[in-house]
Amino acid sequence: MVDNPDDPRFASRRAFLRSGLVASGAAALGGSLPARAETVGNPANLPPNVPDWSRFLGEGVGVRAYGKPSQHEANVIRRDVEWLTASRESSVSFTPLHELDGPITPNGLCFERHHGGIAEVNPTDYRLMLHGLVEKPLIFTLDDIKRMPRVNRAYFCECAANSGMEWRGAQLNGCQFTHGMIHSVMYTGVPLKILLEQAGVKPNAKWLLLEGGDAAAMTRSLPLQKALEDTLVAYRMNGEMLRPENGYPVRMVVPGWEANMWVKWIRRIEVGDQPWHHREETSKYTDLLEGGKARRFTYVMDAKSVITNPSPQAPLNHKRGFTVLAGLAWSGRGKVQRVDVSLDGGRNWQAARLDGPVWDKALTRFYYEFDWDGRELLLQSRAMDETGYVQPTKAELRQVRGVNSIYHNNGIQTWHVRSSGEVENVEVS
Amino acid sequence: MVDNPDDPRFASRRAFLRSGLVASGAAALGGSLPARAETVGNPANLPPNVPDWSRFLGEGVGVRAYGKPSQHEANVIRRDVEWLTASRESSVSFTPLHELDGPITPNGLCFERHHGGIAEVNPTDYRLMLHGLVEKPLIFTLDDIKRMPRVNRAYFCECAANSGMEWRGAQLNGCQFTHGMIHSVMYTGVPLKILLEQAGVKPNAKWLLLEGGDAAAMTRSLPLQKALEDTLVAYRMNGEMLRPENGYPVRMVVPGWEANMWVKWIRRIEVGDQPWHHREETSKYTDLLEGGKARRFTYVMDAKSVITNPSPQAPLNHKRGFTVLAGLAWSGRGKVQRVDVSLDGGRNWQAARLDGPVWDKALTRFYYEFDWDGRELLLQSRAMDETGYVQPTKAELRQVRGVNSIYHNNGIQTWHVRSSGEVENVEVS
Repeated sequence: MVDNPDDPRFASRRAFLRSGLVASGAAALGGSLPARAETVGNPANLPPNVPDWSRFLGEGVGVRAYGKPSQHEANVIRRDVEWLTASRESSVSFTPLHELDGPITPNGLCFERHHGGIAEVNPTDYRLMLHGLVEKPLIFTLDDIKRMPRVNRAYFCECAANSGMEWRGAQLNGCQFTHGMIHSVMYTGVPLKILLEQAGVKPNAKWLLLEGGDAAAMTRSLPLQKALEDTLVAYRMNGEMLRPENGYPVRMVVPGWEANMWVKWIRRIEVGDQPWHHREETSKYTDLLEGGKARRFTYVMDAKSVITNPSPQAPLNHKRGFTVLAGLAWSGRGKVQRVDVSLDGGRNWQAARLDGPVWDKALTRFYYEFDWDGRELLLQSRAMDETGYVQPTKAELRQVRGVNSIYHNNGIQTWHVRSSGEVENVEVS
Repeated sequence: MVDNPDDPRFASRRAFLRSGLVASGAAALGGSLPARAETVGNPANLPPNVPDWSRFLGEGVGVRAYGKPSQHEANVIRRDVEWLTASRESSVSFTPLHELDGPITPNGLCFERHHGGIAEVNPTDYRLMLHGLVEKPLIFTLDDIKRMPRVNRAYFCECAANSGMEWRGAQLNGCQFTHGMIHSVMYTGVPLKILLEQAGVKPNAKWLLLEGGDAAAMTRSLPLQKALEDTLVAYRMNGEMLRPENGYPVRMVVPGWEANMWVKWIRRIEVGDQPWHHREETSKYTDLLEGGKARRFTYVMDAKSVITNPSPQAPLNHKRGFTVLAGLAWSGRGKVQRVDVSLDGGRNWQAARLDGPVWDKALTRFYYEFDWDGRELLLQSRAMDETGYVQPTKAELRQVRGVNSIYHNNGIQTWHVRSSGEVENVEVS
């Protein structure tokens, strides 16, 4: 940066705002423009003149048969929280939401949770059995599944325990940890309905059992209605085959419902007339209320949002001026209709700008551009979905659900931005 | 597979078609259903019973901070053609279209072309200079660019030379090589218009010079009108920062126009009143016609399509029965409106099913499901865009452009499917 005002490359903020074109550009986008760019006195001043990468031949193509990120992005990784789970074989990795943008999560950074390690499935030996209350029990190979009619749909996949540690107050310092148990990719898969139609579902069928091929044999009961509606037997994410930790070669995609239902390495689907009451739908993935009662089969992930930038891991590096606030919103009940943003802890709200595709049950990107005067901020976002449902405050949520649950916390998150630009996870009452 | 009809798991094709539900499912999707799934006599028959991956704990999460594909997908890679270019530092890698599905290309497999190797740019030292016919020449850091209002848009990026070797007849045996110089990702970037407005474009400005920071200093002239319309200064693909070979940290995105214009590692934008006539728009990237005249500034990539499966690298593995034909269509002039498919070399055409998002100037996925009787096929696809433009045959194209050019071949491709399921690249007259 050029800090000397005598240098011809120096630009003051005031000089910027004087330009008529700048003002009109700003108006079109609802705010003033960034002011950190330097002016150039003479093109020869281009710092750092001709850089090394222009002076020497780069590496050739041969070594990049499958590409990877720049070495300068080595910090953009999934992270786990070691104390959160009992072992590495039953653990979770969090998506670095603060390092991403747009509505698509890149495959290498998709959050994943596993209960018996990451199964290493040989696609040649892979089989999916469909049996129970069906006319004709069937076994499908991977080739069988790939030969069926398929669809491409972007959906978010969110762990029911996402934000779970926030039930009792602000705990984790970064949206990667408070909200990073979510990803959203373009899935390719066969509607489960098509498999069920081949087997011929009997009239008394009401429920399905989904069983994973991992060492934990992850097992959940799925209502037949959801299976026929939009559930997919998926094998691709963002165009390529699923990653091992995301269920290679085949997983369930249960749009809008908690990720635990999205059984990975799917091995067996049994058709029955009632739920199975397995561990993952009794001891776990139920919501313990005050008084000892628990809500069960709370599948749907309600509307939720989070500001990804700024956030505790991504502070503001400029002291004041034009600022882009970025975030994500989603709803398990349909499309995001609107996102509001507050800079003062929920007293005043402004509509955010939704940008890029607004898909059904998928992550939706929002932005809010404003001129930061350097004062402290209490940032909040609030999603509303197409059913009219509005994301509640944490206080509203606790009033109904208490603080014993670890699942289905979709309360409004607050980030405290200091004058220094540093950000921390706080709660406002 | 179970081939013995006495085995209870054996299912004949006829048995399948007898099911009423199968028939209704098939009707809903416009064809009969796959018939290779085995029936199960007894759930205990699940082959190969309990597989290894269910019996042993898998690997924990720690080692997968940045995920990668399964070892069983090691064949799904970009490939180059060694004899195509003079050196590895000026080369190209092709996207394995036949191994992908959906409308999004995963970042690790995005086609890329470079002329001076892959520049290794340090993001801290990165600068973008904007000068020439502007009120105020400016230099932007990466932080400056990241602080500006941004948009998320999926666009295809196709080399003008894609399918170039097919001008004089069927040459390369696989859609990876005939059509793989294309990718389509969700870009995040700042409209170039916003940068230009900050600098203040002078009234006599008409053209821009885009210069890359690589050793080749890739340089192209861009009409100001396109710069103001939809050109992006992009830094992300599918959510994460650009990959080095795709221009890390900042590249141009020039929607619908030939990829050579999408200058990578963008270092300098100069505003002028006429084009610069650089090497890449005179000696190269011009279309030599019969008689010696050349078309110049042929930026737009016209509507085009290709059947990705089956194709020479992806033969049909079943001898007959339900078959899903998959392909991609795109147009540099807008959205794909319709894709037709022919099984008999262009005599008869049927409408394909477009699936997933149909974005402006992006790859669009299409399918055509049919019952293959095992006879030889001559597969073709034909795209039509929203302007009404219809993809021409190669013969029609040659009539107008001759066979001297290597650029802008958007002619209809033909795959010959043998009874064995093998596929080869052919031409029909």
